[in-house]
Amino acid sequence: MSMYDLIVKKKRGETLTKDEINEMIAGYVGGSVPDYQMSAMMMAICFQGMTEEETVNLTLAMAESGERLDLSAIKGIKVDKHSTGGVGDKTSLVLAPLVASVGVPVAKMSGRGLGHTGGTIDKLESFSGFRTSLSEEEFINNVNRIHIAVAGQTANLAPADKKLYALRDVTGTVDQMSLIASSIMSKKLASGADAIVLDVKTGDGAFMKSQEDSEALAREMLSIGQLAGRQMAAVISDMDQPLGYAVGNALEIKEAVDTLKGKGPKDLEELVLTLGALMTVMAGEAKDEDEARLLLKNNLYNGKAYDTFLTFIEAQGGDIRQAEDTSLLPEASITAEVPSEYSGYIADIATEEIGKISLLLGGGRETKESKIDLAVGVALKKKKGDAVRKGETLAVIHANHPEKVAAARKRLAAAYTISKEPAEKPKLIKKIMK
Amino acid sequence: MSMYDLIVKKKRGETLTKDEINEMIAGYVGGSVPDYQMSAMMMAICFQGMTEEETVNLTLAMAESGERLDLSAIKGIKVDKHSTGGVGDKTSLVLAPLVASVGVPVAKMSGRGLGHTGGTIDKLESFSGFRTSLSEEEFINNVNRIHIAVAGQTANLAPADKKLYALRDVTGTVDQMSLIASSIMSKKLASGADAIVLDVKTGDGAFMKSQEDSEALAREMLSIGQLAGRQMAAVISDMDQPLGYAVGNALEIKEAVDTLKGKGPKDLEELVLTLGALMTVMAGEAKDEDEARLLLKNNLYNGKAYDTFLTFIEAQGGDIRQAEDTSLLPEASITAEVPSEYSGYIADIATEEIGKISLLLGGGRETKESKIDLAVGVALKKKKGDAVRKGETLAVIHANHPEKVAAARKRLAAAYTISKEPAEKPKLIKKIMK
Repeated sequence: MSMYDLIVKKKRGETLTKDEINEMIAGYVGGSVPDYQMSAMMMAICFQGMTEEETVNLTLAMAESGERLDLSAIKGIKVDKHSTGGVGDKTSLVLAPLVASVGVPVAKMSGRGLGHTGGTIDKLESFSGFRTSLSEEEFINNVNRIHIAVAGQTANLAPADKKLYALRDVTGTVDQMSLIASSIMSKKLASGADAIVLDVKTGDGAFMKSQEDSEALAREMLSIGQLAGRQMAAVISDMDQPLGYAVGNALEIKEAVDTLKGKGPKDLEELVLTLGALMTVMAGEAKDEDEARLLLKNNLYNGKAYDTFLTFIEAQGGDIRQAEDTSLLPEASITAEVPSEYSGYIADIATEEIGKISLLLGGGRETKESKIDLAVGVALKKKKGDAVRKGETLAVIHANHPEKVAAARKRLAAAYTISKEPAEKPKLIKKIMK
Repeated sequence: MSMYDLIVKKKRGETLTKDEINEMIAGYVGGSVPDYQMSAMMMAICFQGMTEEETVNLTLAMAESGERLDLSAIKGIKVDKHSTGGVGDKTSLVLAPLVASVGVPVAKMSGRGLGHTGGTIDKLESFSGFRTSLSEEEFINNVNRIHIAVAGQTANLAPADKKLYALRDVTGTVDQMSLIASSIMSKKLASGADAIVLDVKTGDGAFMKSQEDSEALAREMLSIGQLAGRQMAAVISDMDQPLGYAVGNALEIKEAVDTLKGKGPKDLEELVLTLGALMTVMAGEAKDEDEARLLLKNNLYNGKAYDTFLTFIEAQGGDIRQAEDTSLLPEASITAEVPSEYSGYIADIATEEIGKISLLLGGGRETKESKIDLAVGVALKKKKGDAVRKGETLAVIHANHPEKVAAARKRLAAAYTISKEPAEKPKLIKKIMK
């Protein structure tokens, strides 16, 4: 069937076969299917949806469109983790060395941040000298030797997804659930892990604002992974306020280091332990989640998780003196406190807005070409449910450009909703799905 | 608003403003809006539709995207006619000289045929020497002098429609009613007529197969024309069998000449009189349709319509000896009769199939680049409701390639459905809409 016929078929609400999807993706990567036909197809999919089978077939076609990582030279069950992205989400920075410290092999490909959410690779580059482009040999050797390596995604990983995502991004076809799920999962499948744990964020600071949508996305991704023969689990976690207190690259590194020493924010620690326990059991390093949780918690408090982190940073060329003394990490020249105008309780934090303020300060990328300022960001002092007195600090701005401070201060104050009635702390872990 | 925002707006089912539509079309013609964004927009329109106002604004934006014909140098009210296309539709060949003969100024831009329906320009080129590219001066002078000129569409008439149609054609977005209506009407509005009569075909041989769809299309086009300040009328006419008996360029010319002499098929004559009466009244050449019909019918039988035809053909360089003696028109080397296998009544004729058989014989264009054989086609001997005896001729094939005859004969026989019970003749004029 020609691409024209496939567009008409999908427009009518019919189901595309595996062969048809394979041809379409091969043609798109090869150049015989032009962008203008693919964008019409994507828009038709936004209206007609895809079946579970179509979604799996699209994912596999994209996963197989380029290089596939072969992790068979790594001993043990390789477990990967993916977060749908949020504000202040430094989970991977803590989680990866922590599970590595109990023997789970972590062979992680990570992305850069775009828009209001940050990326793990950007945060790790806060350490001077840290390298994220590793040869395949070095990558595999490091995992076998110290149980952990984190590399930037190679250009040729799921190139069909890369091309298709760029097209969807400019044609208003990004927000279709099956397309989102297949985009994420195509990269995960090509990355070669045996088991995948998903952290699907939900709330104002997440891509999916409602729990219903987050669960639907998780279900789609679980089913794709399972049909592709992977062990899968998903955690639906709260993103109605930033995770922890720090938002911004170096600020988040400091908070991650604290957490690795057992001195981090409780919400971040709880999410790390929940995701880590699932990963540890899948890797066969604990018989159940309770046992796993105990192992992991011990290593947070006995220094082993932190030691693994130092070994990992050093192995990839980073300066570990900046972990030992985090004042050596990039620091902003200006800090400005944002005081509360009222006394009361924090009822709401406009989370996406916090991410955007960090972006405004220079801490994120507006476009793929933007250069980021690792030092800047926002350090929250109050989170939901906290009591606050008039004049007490809500958050601290870390900036390098004085002219940006006034706007950031005004927007930060406005991002907080303070009520006279006591407000509840939100539940962090909304659901675990397998 | 950026094109991206406009796509998202339409995808959500919202209404685009006049300015937004103007910017979109200007950007598309100018090249700043790429095909891949426009095709996503077209697909979103297929699902969300357009309001009457959006449709008018799109039509006007496309009509104003290139050259607009200025017919003000022509005296009187200029009336144009448009047919949505059918099999054996030689209406314009008879109608244009007929209404010109009663004083209606006919300044007509006509298209070529594509697919299973024929085009007026192709048919007129059956006359040796006939020219369809006229200078603006010649075009206007001819209308002022002899009340009629027919020219091929210039490339720069509604170029936005041309570009957009080509894109829709390859992205599965042709069949949306408002897009069809605005495509047709943009060319008509740019052609400069004061009044427009539409012949909207309905049935198997038409683009719109059901009367409901045909009426909906007519309603959209009427409303666009009226909102653009034109006098408008539409006739919904039967296309569940070919119009008249002849299908193929020179064969249709012969039938048109017969009709201009008052010796044509009754259905063709009736359609011509119905459309012609509407045009004559709009042009102010008769006080009502009854009077107009009488004037027109007289001119079919007193030779004036035929004389105007000869003057018209001669004025554009055609050889009128081929009208006086139609055996001088291109003639096929082979004629093959298709006999009926049964006795009974003609209950159905697969009309689109008849058009496709003529195409197979070389009488139409598969693509815009195809060269057509003016001589070939099909001459029907039986139409719906007619009685037929076994062995009696249903139709005659006119061919120039002997190897094509067998397939054409088989398909023609299969295109007729013969029942034992008497079958009704279909009603030709389904509805008149204003």
